[in-house]
Amino acid sequence: MATALDQLCVNTIRSLSIDAIQQANSGHPGLPLGAAPMAYALWMHVLRHNPANPLWPDRDRFILSAGHGSMLLYSLLFLTGYDLPLDEIKRFRQWDSKTPGHPERDPARGIEITTGPLGQGFAHGVGVAMAERFLAARFNRPGHAIVDHHTYAIAGDGDLMEGVAREAASLAGHLGLGKLIYLYDSNEISLAASTNLTFTEDVAQAFGGYGWHVLGVDGMDVEAVVHALEAAKSVADKPSLIIARTKIGFGSPKAGTHGVHGSPLNADEVLATKRALGYPSEEPFFVPPQALERLRGAVSRGKDLERDWQERFDAYAKKFPDLAAEWTRIMAGKLPEGWDKEIPSFPAGGKPIATRTAGSQAINAIAARVPELIGGSADLNPSTNTALKGAGDFQNPFSANGDRQGAVGGEWGFGGHNLHFGVREHAMAAITSGLSIHGGVVPFAATFLTFSDYMRPSIRLAALMGLPVVYVFTHDSIGVGEDGPTHQPIEHAAALRSIPNLTVIRPADANETASAWRLAMTRRDGPVALLLTRQALPILTGTGDVARGAYVLADADGKPDVILIASGSEVCLAIEAREKLAARKVGARVVSMPSWEMFERQSPEYRDSVLPPGVTARLVIEAGVPLGWHKYAGSAGDVLAIENRFGASAPIKVVMEKLGFTADNVAARAIALIERRRG
Amino acid sequence: MATALDQLCVNTIRSLSIDAIQQANSGHPGLPLGAAPMAYALWMHVLRHNPANPLWPDRDRFILSAGHGSMLLYSLLFLTGYDLPLDEIKRFRQWDSKTPGHPERDPARGIEITTGPLGQGFAHGVGVAMAERFLAARFNRPGHAIVDHHTYAIAGDGDLMEGVAREAASLAGHLGLGKLIYLYDSNEISLAASTNLTFTEDVAQAFGGYGWHVLGVDGMDVEAVVHALEAAKSVADKPSLIIARTKIGFGSPKAGTHGVHGSPLNADEVLATKRALGYPSEEPFFVPPQALERLRGAVSRGKDLERDWQERFDAYAKKFPDLAAEWTRIMAGKLPEGWDKEIPSFPAGGKPIATRTAGSQAINAIAARVPELIGGSADLNPSTNTALKGAGDFQNPFSANGDRQGAVGGEWGFGGHNLHFGVREHAMAAITSGLSIHGGVVPFAATFLTFSDYMRPSIRLAALMGLPVVYVFTHDSIGVGEDGPTHQPIEHAAALRSIPNLTVIRPADANETASAWRLAMTRRDGPVALLLTRQALPILTGTGDVARGAYVLADADGKPDVILIASGSEVCLAIEAREKLAARKVGARVVSMPSWEMFERQSPEYRDSVLPPGVTARLVIEAGVPLGWHKYAGSAGDVLAIENRFGASAPIKVVMEKLGFTADNVAARAIALIERRRG
Repeated sequence: MATALDQLCVNTIRSLSIDAIQQANSGHPGLPLGAAPMAYALWMHVLRHNPANPLWPDRDRFILSAGHGSMLLYSLLFLTGYDLPLDEIKRFRQWDSKTPGHPERDPARGIEITTGPLGQGFAHGVGVAMAERFLAARFNRPGHAIVDHHTYAIAGDGDLMEGVAREAASLAGHLGLGKLIYLYDSNEISLAASTNLTFTEDVAQAFGGYGWHVLGVDGMDVEAVVHALEAAKSVADKPSLIIARTKIGFGSPKAGTHGVHGSPLNADEVLATKRALGYPSEEPFFVPPQALERLRGAVSRGKDLERDWQERFDAYAKKFPDLAAEWTRIMAGKLPEGWDKEIPSFPAGGKPIATRTAGSQAINAIAARVPELIGGSADLNPSTNTALKGAGDFQNPFSANGDRQGAVGGEWGFGGHNLHFGVREHAMAAITSGLSIHGGVVPFAATFLTFSDYMRPSIRLAALMGLPVVYVFTHDSIGVGEDGPTHQPIEHAAALRSIPNLTVIRPADANETASAWRLAMTRRDGPVALLLTRQALPILTGTGDVARGAYVLADADGKPDVILIASGSEVCLAIEAREKLAARKVGARVVSMPSWEMFERQSPEYRDSVLPPGVTARLVIEAGVPLGWHKYAGSAGDVLAIENRFGASAPIKVVMEKLGFTADNVAARAIALIERRRG
Repeated sequence: MATALDQLCVNTIRSLSIDAIQQANSGHPGLPLGAAPMAYALWMHVLRHNPANPLWPDRDRFILSAGHGSMLLYSLLFLTGYDLPLDEIKRFRQWDSKTPGHPERDPARGIEITTGPLGQGFAHGVGVAMAERFLAARFNRPGHAIVDHHTYAIAGDGDLMEGVAREAASLAGHLGLGKLIYLYDSNEISLAASTNLTFTEDVAQAFGGYGWHVLGVDGMDVEAVVHALEAAKSVADKPSLIIARTKIGFGSPKAGTHGVHGSPLNADEVLATKRALGYPSEEPFFVPPQALERLRGAVSRGKDLERDWQERFDAYAKKFPDLAAEWTRIMAGKLPEGWDKEIPSFPAGGKPIATRTAGSQAINAIAARVPELIGGSADLNPSTNTALKGAGDFQNPFSANGDRQGAVGGEWGFGGHNLHFGVREHAMAAITSGLSIHGGVVPFAATFLTFSDYMRPSIRLAALMGLPVVYVFTHDSIGVGEDGPTHQPIEHAAALRSIPNLTVIRPADANETASAWRLAMTRRDGPVALLLTRQALPILTGTGDVARGAYVLADADGKPDVILIASGSEVCLAIEAREKLAARKVGARVVSMPSWEMFERQSPEYRDSVLPPGVTARLVIEAGVPLGWHKYAGSAGDVLAIENRFGASAPIKVVMEKLGFTADNVAARAIALIERRRG
């Protein structure tokens, strides 16, 4: 039974949380007040973690999907002994504090993931749990379970309403991720109103349909929550959803109303809350010593847990030294020696191939040497060409006998490298980030560029967290042809380039594609998006290293009359136009510009050498919106792009010609530009 | 029982579809072959439509959510007598044909909605059905049901896997949309593989959990499908999902495989398919006369249906002339006389107010005169300020007695103007488009700008379809303050500006906001996004009409030394900086630029008058990424923006100052720019 001391600890979490919110005069008191009991039950009775070493690799992972309840997490971190002092709690929501408004990934302090946008934590957690299962399948040996931890989250009504959570839930159920356990803080209140207004579905039935193990519990009862968590742990072949009925804003005068969701209490209400809770002091930030002592017990328990694991790992390392060395390498995020030795190069002038096809060769060459490379597509492998050949399918091994409506299992089980996301682009992006957050894998995700829109909320979070994930976006322009405007990305390259800390690379041919994959594999501080063509492209002379973002691919004799700037499939048009211009005695330089972000990181000298300030006749060619290219074209330049319209359904040759993407038109626009400037 | 002639008709649909795909050598034969029986059953036995007048207002709506099966729809349209001749079928997927790769909205030809991106049609249909219920509640009178039609869709496995479909399904179940009936083409195959690989959930159970009426049926049996549709129609208080088991690519040598999903058959396989189906001719595009006669029966049936309705409408108009006139007006998409008379104006120098607050006043002033204005937010009404006061909540009237887990009903039932979407941004956008697609309402949707990312796939479709919907995006910059980088949009304005045919307006103060709402209400050929602040802004002198996109708000005496260009909350910074510059004898012009798109539509003369080519010292101020602004700053200009980083959690004043958004810094940057140019 939960003791009075347990209750005091729960109230300490509550009190600290509302004090910090009050001090900031900003924040969300409702969740910490209502969810403190379940959080306490999880963190003190079930979660295997080590506050003294938050990076212990076999720790259980905890995700506060309802990130607006950030003070709940910060209170737990401080009280259980993480490197988050009380002074930081007092600086909640202030510039440069360690306690921002929503949790921001900081694993060394116990914050696994940035949350706040609803549904994201829920979906990311599925990726975290998949990484655990993949590594367990790859590294554990009979009697030696060195990878064996759970992934927990607290999610709210808002998380569950989001489609990305449902996509992830359906996939988690399909995969039978038994070590995924989510506490659903069911308080029937969202920011604006009672959930009666919008959300009356039978969540238990729906999640049952997804293949989850669903339990209900009184979320205000610490002991009951502990029992529910233990029951969830006992079900190995299904993820668990514990529907914990709670009262939002418990103890406060606004309890049970949406007014307590997202606005601070006032000073009187804070006092009234402490009184209602029977809290021993009204002094702000007061922490009862006996509660702190109990909560700080997590430190010694954590040390014991890690020591026990370390002993087991040492025994494993003795018996399987190669595996242990490999495990140490991948958990450090290091690529193996010679990882890129098999990446092909392509002879200039060879048979034209699509950059998606070149990408397939590169990724398979990498996979042959980098066993931690895992990924897949949103039901588009035959089109994105991202299957890892012979590397197995990641599937639920429990399903080999078809118990889940004929779900496939297969010999690889959770050790397969090919992830099958289904038609769930958004969850794919979130899960891919989750894989990276867990660590020990290098994940990628693939779909058509036009569907990158479905993934943006998760791409943004990956960029914000600085996660090294790779997106493969094929069918990258109107070059898609007959599928028409819904499937032809027009604005997506520009829209991706707008995201801070996302590196976008649109290679011009097979060799730039191989280089782009090299770059993607070695970037460690943020995501990379590769934009690849459906259609075959010639293999150009002089293409290669994309690391500088832009470079002179072909030049004029002497000072150029005009600079043609392009990326991707438009570069070969520029090369062709350059020859036509040469025939008319116009000297053109061709600049291949696969990546703005990488070009901007070069020295001013290098940038000026590629785009000399003295050459202002510049024509950009982009089979998409012109947005952003004027920076490089300059005031005196021109941009041949797709303006004020979408694409159209027709064979590629027709679409390209009708929209002006021919070498003749490029040459004509270049000459018009030069003449206009003379004129 | 389905007759031999029924079967011949089904096979005619199949045969025509694969012939067109074969001729284009591009397309998706799997769906038309498998879903032809259910489509035939629906179109010939249940759907109330009039091929001779596809715009008949009380027609049932049909949505092919699985848009890749477009030839199924085109075959139906041609065969049942719509304005889509056989020649257009033969031009499938060719430039400028009426039969593009995926259906593109063309209601005069019977194509209600553009589909292709999966999940969208499913979610849009919920909006279509909501519009029907809203209009029925508003216009029907006892004994006079002038609005009384169903919304049908055919959706595939891919549609159902998408989160947007689940969000919409959960809301449709909550609302008890009994006139929404979806046929789920359950063929267990998606583009890349068997659904066993990714999608093994119990769909019936999940949709039961959402509150749907779920039926199973043999989808290859015309008569059984008709019975299922009739059973679905008999359930008035729940949407219905008919799980129709089918065989993808039925009749073809590739039946039941993913190879038939998205690639044309070859000529031999087309022949083999026709033989297997027992089709009477192998000649391409052969249509058996008796099948055509049967299918064209839809024309006379449709005329009878509309005539019957017209008689009923005439009786209604006689009894309720005002209502009938009102109904005629709104269905024509015309605003009432004096619709904007109550939109407030705000005295310059008055109390500063947030543009979200000014927006609230404008929208309520409009709602007072425009009863067809309906909309709401994704659980953010207290923050977006988009509640329509006293205009009622759109809720399921069946739920007044709490049968759906306490769902609220309320006096307004389906006649309420305030839509409550829950935390479902993506479905909100799709549903808002669906409302517009139905017609008779002017819909809007609101959330934080940062969450516009969740909505992009549907925003894009709205722009592609040219739908007049309004998005209200508040909390439009780092001005959000403490909530931090997850909630501070940095790249979203730029990302929205990248979408063709979307008009983005970011007003500088309350008066520009009122003008922006005027513009938004009168744009008929595409969506408008209003970007509004959380924080209060001063009411500036001279602000007003935003219709030209940009204008001179304050000028220098004589030729300006520098032009300061800004939108939204940065305009008042520019005004303040201008005064500081004047004190230093620097003459600055301030250009308020609320909308790029509208500015680009002005004459070159007007544009040059605002941004004279001779004044090249231009400083743009944007509390977001600089992307795209260099076009207006020019090569000699500068952009004060947020580069290579996200925002941060802290009080607004601190965030603004730390990131450089102070009048002092604007003035300093302007002087540096002038000095650099003097150099």
